[in-house]
Amino acid sequence: MPKSWYNILPDLPKPLPPPIDPSTRTPVDPRKLERIFPKELIKQELSPERWIPIPEEVRDVLRLWRPTPLYRAVLLEKALKTPARIYYKYEGVSPPGSHKPNTAVAQAYYNMKEGVERLTTETGAGQWGSALSFATNMFGMKCTVYMVRASYNQKPARKMLMHSWGAEVYPSPSDRTNFGRAMLSKDPNHPGSLGIAISEALEDCVTHDNTRYSLGSVLNHVLMHQTVQGLEALEQLKQVGDYPDVVAGCVGGGSSFSGLFWPFYYEVVSKKAPKKVKFVATEPTACPTMTKGIYTYDFGDTAKMTPLLPMYTLGSDFIPPPIHAGGLRYHGDAPTLCLLLHEGWIEPHAYDQVSVFQAAVQFARAEGFLPGPEPAHTIRYVIDEALRCKQTGEEKVILFNLCGHGAFDLHAYEEFFEGKLPPWYYPEDEIKKSIDRLKEELKWLPEVEKQFLGL
Amino acid sequence: MPKSWYNILPDLPKPLPPPIDPSTRTPVDPRKLERIFPKELIKQELSPERWIPIPEEVRDVLRLWRPTPLYRAVLLEKALKTPARIYYKYEGVSPPGSHKPNTAVAQAYYNMKEGVERLTTETGAGQWGSALSFATNMFGMKCTVYMVRASYNQKPARKMLMHSWGAEVYPSPSDRTNFGRAMLSKDPNHPGSLGIAISEALEDCVTHDNTRYSLGSVLNHVLMHQTVQGLEALEQLKQVGDYPDVVAGCVGGGSSFSGLFWPFYYEVVSKKAPKKVKFVATEPTACPTMTKGIYTYDFGDTAKMTPLLPMYTLGSDFIPPPIHAGGLRYHGDAPTLCLLLHEGWIEPHAYDQVSVFQAAVQFARAEGFLPGPEPAHTIRYVIDEALRCKQTGEEKVILFNLCGHGAFDLHAYEEFFEGKLPPWYYPEDEIKKSIDRLKEELKWLPEVEKQFLGL
Repeated sequence: MPKSWYNILPDLPKPLPPPIDPSTRTPVDPRKLERIFPKELIKQELSPERWIPIPEEVRDVLRLWRPTPLYRAVLLEKALKTPARIYYKYEGVSPPGSHKPNTAVAQAYYNMKEGVERLTTETGAGQWGSALSFATNMFGMKCTVYMVRASYNQKPARKMLMHSWGAEVYPSPSDRTNFGRAMLSKDPNHPGSLGIAISEALEDCVTHDNTRYSLGSVLNHVLMHQTVQGLEALEQLKQVGDYPDVVAGCVGGGSSFSGLFWPFYYEVVSKKAPKKVKFVATEPTACPTMTKGIYTYDFGDTAKMTPLLPMYTLGSDFIPPPIHAGGLRYHGDAPTLCLLLHEGWIEPHAYDQVSVFQAAVQFARAEGFLPGPEPAHTIRYVIDEALRCKQTGEEKVILFNLCGHGAFDLHAYEEFFEGKLPPWYYPEDEIKKSIDRLKEELKWLPEVEKQFLGL
Repeated sequence: MPKSWYNILPDLPKPLPPPIDPSTRTPVDPRKLERIFPKELIKQELSPERWIPIPEEVRDVLRLWRPTPLYRAVLLEKALKTPARIYYKYEGVSPPGSHKPNTAVAQAYYNMKEGVERLTTETGAGQWGSALSFATNMFGMKCTVYMVRASYNQKPARKMLMHSWGAEVYPSPSDRTNFGRAMLSKDPNHPGSLGIAISEALEDCVTHDNTRYSLGSVLNHVLMHQTVQGLEALEQLKQVGDYPDVVAGCVGGGSSFSGLFWPFYYEVVSKKAPKKVKFVATEPTACPTMTKGIYTYDFGDTAKMTPLLPMYTLGSDFIPPPIHAGGLRYHGDAPTLCLLLHEGWIEPHAYDQVSVFQAAVQFARAEGFLPGPEPAHTIRYVIDEALRCKQTGEEKVILFNLCGHGAFDLHAYEEFFEGKLPPWYYPEDEIKKSIDRLKEELKWLPEVEKQFLGL
């Protein structure tokens, strides 16, 4: 298990453009963030240090399930009759069942060290909320989760999981915040959205003492905490004498994929990699930020409370179709990932929901493990690539992360078997409208694009 | 990972009493079983060999999740402030989430080798059915699961899991068998029972070619396949230089507990154990076979189609209260386990449902992993024992198996948090009635008890 996280900031091909305050159109003063995040995490967010030590107390909790297994997908290779060697890093063995606790544990720890007693956050289907509930519980802290009401009612399993670790979970919009009450006054049965839940979690944070807010993706420090995945995989592959030609992962905000590929990126830029490595990011056609988004500045949330972030976006008003891969329904991506995509380091692929579940079932029937719908996007790519290798005879080495299990997504599989699953192809018109709205609202975007993105 | 299973038959303190044909009151001819089970499994059932090699093809599938982790419960020890050292073997990492595939894979393999194309079985909440669906899928076989209708309707997750591995799942009673149709003609909405589902699976088996039946517990060969758990744990403990004073597990039919403790029992009887080892079996007060049952001969199933088995029983008519630990709702126990219990080798403890869930939540909040309701019975014992050690200052080493996760049991946790979970204490009257009925029905029981059990 690694003793330090890898921070990509000093190794990016260009300096990361700063977040912008939309009221001043200038970079945000980091000290303004101290009411929201603990000082150590703000420091990590901006740190020029390549290696940041993982505190022993954090390692003691990660040890419950780390190092996670790296599997060679021998049975899938046989089923496909491919000469490719396929490896997957399995993060589904964590108590909440995904990669999310890798950062949740670190965030809870630093908050606890600075005297914070309670964390607030939002969650959609509950992956992130359950990870933070688990992590705060391990450090004796309280946790308040605002869960999108539609999920709270329709997908109760992860809500119950959060309860089992002692968290408070409220359907959002709730009557606990001004913003939530305003939404409920418009519609007492409001189904909620991630944007509304973020707003409630932030309001709860800033209106209570000893309370901070926690985010599960997008930010630099969050992605950095995920590098335990890639650092372990690198070591595990060395032990079997192999090295990837391709490193692949799915992208919602970008944390699971970045956690896997950053350490390999470092190998490449520091000329330690013994061969060329391709970095492949997968996403749904329903929410195609990397393949159909534009590179500009946009709000991180639907309620437009955050600073503007430099990213590929479909427009912060874009509401993705209700695909089952809830973790990939985000209108933007992490700024670091977007910079690398813009600089040509990442090859993006988008897949429709039906072809994704076909791949998921093929994987489950070969390898046994039932994948979550999010990593199933990467499995679609991996199967296609392995079949291309079969045509060309190439013995490519493909590494991907199976970042969560599918035990809480069985209804989606059932819909697939019943032929009721919609594919959700590119929603071209909605994307165009949403991006047009963004440009209309922020007429001065070209200015900051020129100044900070060099476009 | 072990290369052979450990077979306890040659090391039992007395020869295992044979199964009895109730129509002749004499031991069953093993050849009669060949229409139900493949020859190799019948051979293993009676084998005098201590070590039986695990076929490489079986090991190749087990390798997907084995060896399973052995954890030192450091955080639970800290929370309890106990000088005891607590270890747990975590079987929840298997694709179906429990220890059940350890035998399902072996059984599917031997059937496949003998040309069987399809396996039938019954399942209650779905643990065993999902394990066999997984295993048959890995060997390209078909699987038909009769699932108790009440569970089929109320707990659909594991049904969907079986579908994802390609199994056919029918609510039982079904219209696919004479027995099922007879039940449905009495009540078209019959909720079903495990006994009825067994009858349907057996009828489906004997009325179709190339079809065999598969059982998930009780039989000797099934328990033997589970010894990979104990053999791994023994090796893992040796690596850290420790040895248990207590080996504990929960008992429904007895397969998970036997799989863990048999190898340690062998260490004791062959004088290899460096110290005295206590074997502790836990069960629910709702279905207290070991603490309140009588040692006699009884049918293995409610429909009374099986031979009579030598066991502790509550009477095959006994219907346990609807506790959430579905895997522990069995009126008898494995004959090997019962012999050892009768000979004083096993210390049984029974716990009510509320105290079991208190222990489960205490464990989840200390160690992170959410236990299934079945192993939570053992956790209750372990916590109590660790607290006793705190009083006495004893540094006892306690080993137990966490034989399945609780991800599909979240509704039970939610009921517990809402204070709606009934404790279900000993149902003394129902047990007495059921045992009286057994003695009434089989008036000649004392004869076979005397002849074969030496009572």
